[in-house]
Amino acid sequence: MSDADSGGIAVLAGGVGAAKFLAGLVEEVGPERVTAVVNVADDTTVHGLHVSPDLDSCTYTLAGANDTERGWGLRSETWLAMESLGRYAEANDVTDGDAAAWFSLGDRDLGTHLYRTSRLGAGLSLSEVTAEITRGWGILANLLPVTDDPLRTRVHTRDGRELAFQEYFVRERHDVDVRAVQVDGVADAQPAPGVLEALGTATAVVIAPSNPVVSIDPVLAVPGVREAVSARRDSVVAISPIVGGHALKGPADRLLRDLGHEPTVAGIARWYAPVASTLVIDLEDADEAAAVEAEGMRCVVTDTIMRSVGVTADLAATALESLAGS
Amino acid sequence: MSDADSGGIAVLAGGVGAAKFLAGLVEEVGPERVTAVVNVADDTTVHGLHVSPDLDSCTYTLAGANDTERGWGLRSETWLAMESLGRYAEANDVTDGDAAAWFSLGDRDLGTHLYRTSRLGAGLSLSEVTAEITRGWGILANLLPVTDDPLRTRVHTRDGRELAFQEYFVRERHDVDVRAVQVDGVADAQPAPGVLEALGTATAVVIAPSNPVVSIDPVLAVPGVREAVSARRDSVVAISPIVGGHALKGPADRLLRDLGHEPTVAGIARWYAPVASTLVIDLEDADEAAAVEAEGMRCVVTDTIMRSVGVTADLAATALESLAGS
Repeated sequence: MSDADSGGIAVLAGGVGAAKFLAGLVEEVGPERVTAVVNVADDTTVHGLHVSPDLDSCTYTLAGANDTERGWGLRSETWLAMESLGRYAEANDVTDGDAAAWFSLGDRDLGTHLYRTSRLGAGLSLSEVTAEITRGWGILANLLPVTDDPLRTRVHTRDGRELAFQEYFVRERHDVDVRAVQVDGVADAQPAPGVLEALGTATAVVIAPSNPVVSIDPVLAVPGVREAVSARRDSVVAISPIVGGHALKGPADRLLRDLGHEPTVAGIARWYAPVASTLVIDLEDADEAAAVEAEGMRCVVTDTIMRSVGVTADLAATALESLAGS
Repeated sequence: MSDADSGGIAVLAGGVGAAKFLAGLVEEVGPERVTAVVNVADDTTVHGLHVSPDLDSCTYTLAGANDTERGWGLRSETWLAMESLGRYAEANDVTDGDAAAWFSLGDRDLGTHLYRTSRLGAGLSLSEVTAEITRGWGILANLLPVTDDPLRTRVHTRDGRELAFQEYFVRERHDVDVRAVQVDGVADAQPAPGVLEALGTATAVVIAPSNPVVSIDPVLAVPGVREAVSARRDSVVAISPIVGGHALKGPADRLLRDLGHEPTVAGIARWYAPVASTLVIDLEDADEAAAVEAEGMRCVVTDTIMRSVGVTADLAATALESLAGS
C-alpha cells in the first residue's frame, strides 16, 4: 500500500464545483482522510447574518442535503422568510442594498446563518463554528475555512464600479466586464488552525475544479498558503475548471479572459504551474495535452464532467493515481 | 361632535394586550386617528437580528395577520429555520446563549427581522423602519417606537441573577422571583420623532392593558414622556391589565407583588394615578370601584376581556367616553 492509499488528502476548495468533487473524493478514499481548505472571500453579511457560501456548499453537498436541480442551497427548501422580506421591500421600493432580497436565503439555510452568526457573536472562530456545523450533519471530512480572518473579494468593473463579490456574482449574475479583482484583508490574514498542517502533511493536495480567480486564488493568497502548496508542488494536482474553452458553471472563462488570461486548459496550466505539478483535463480537451505540458505541467486526460458521484469518484482516483505514479 | 369624536388618540402600548386593544380601537374610531407609542425595551438582538417584539405584535395584529391561537407571532407560520438551527445546537450541546434556539422565530416572522436589521444597517432609524414595515402591511394607524435609542430591560432576580428581558420572559417563562427591574439606556434616550407631538395634541391618551412594570413604565421612563402624559392627566385613561387579582396574560400580577405592589385594580390605580385621571376596570372587579376612586382616579366598570374585536371596540368606546364626559 503506497502513501497515496492511506495518507491525508488536502483539497483547495471553492463552492459548488469543489463540493461535487469532495463528494466524489470522499466516496473514493473515505471521509476521514479528507481535509478541505475552503475559500471564505465570498463570505458576506446579509441582513446582519454571516453567510459563508462556499463552506455551506461543501457542507450541504457532503451531507447529501444539497439541491442538485437548483445547483445551490438545501433540498426541500422553502422561501417564506424571503417572501415576507419582499413584502416590505416592495412596499417601500427598496431595490438597493441587501434589504432588496436579491440575495435569496431559504428558510432552512437561514438556520445555518443564524447559528453561525450567534456562535461568532459568542466568541467562537469561523473554523470552530464550521466544525460545529459539520458536526450537525455528521460530516466526517474536515472542512476548514482557509482563514478565520475576514476576507472580502471586491470586483472592479470596466465601467468603473466596485462591487462586493455577491453583488457581482448574484445581483449582476456576473454579467459585467471585470477590470480587476482584489481580496480585502488578505495581506493581514492568518491561515486558520490546521490549514498549514493539512497542506504540509497530506499525501496529496488537490486543487478542486473551482474558479481559479475568485475561489482558489483567495485561498492561495492567504500568507503562507501559496508557499505551503508550492513547496509540495510534486504532490499537487489540479482539476481543470475549464472544459472546451468554457467554465462548466459560473464565470471562470469570462473572468480569465477579462483579466488577460486564456480560458483554455493551457491557460489553466499556465495559471497553476507554479503551485501544481499535474493538471487533469477533460476528454474533450485531449488534443490540448501537449499545450498543457508545454506550460511545465504533467497532463492527465479523463472524464471530468461530474455528472454523478461515481464518475466523480473515478475522477478523484485518477487525480490521486497521477501523483502516486510520479 | 365633541373633540373626542374627531381628534387623535394616542395609546401607550406594550405587546399582545396592547395589540388587541389597538385592533378594537381602530375598529371603533378608524385607523387614521390612532397613534400607538410602543415599548421597545423588550427589543433584543437574536442571532444578529434586531427583534422588536412589541412593535411586531402591534403590527401583526393590526394587519390581521397575527396567530390568535398561539397568542403571538404570525398566522400560518412555519419553523424550518429554527429546526435547522436546532440541528446544530443539539449536535453541539449548545444550551446557553441565543444559539440555543429557545427564542423561537418563525420563518415569516424572520423576514420582518431580516428587513429591519438590513434597514437599520443602512442607516434608517427604528421609527423610519417601523413606518416601512407597517406600510408593507397597509396599516393606516401610526405605530411609533417610543424612542429610536436602544433600551434594554434587565431583570434582577432574588437569587442574584441579572437576566435580559427575553431570558426572563421567554427562556425562564417569567417563573422567577424578581427583585428589581431596570431599563438600560433610558436616561439618555430621546423620544422618537412624533411621540411628544402625538401625546401633546391627542384628544385622548389611552394606557393600554399592558404590563405596567415592563411594558408601560419603560415608555413613560423615556425623558419627556411621563411629563407629556401627566400634563394631560385629565385626558388620560388607563385600562387595567389586572382582572380579579390576576394578569390575563403574562407576569404582571407576580411582578407587581414581587416589587411590593398590590396586584389588584386598586394597586393599578395607585400606580397610574400620577399620570391618568381614569381607570377602566372589569365587571369582575366592580366592588373595588370605591378602592380605585380612593386612589384619586375616576373609575369606569365595563367588560374588559378582549375576546373579540367587537367587545374590544366597545371597551375602547367606553374608555374614550369616560374622558369626553369629564
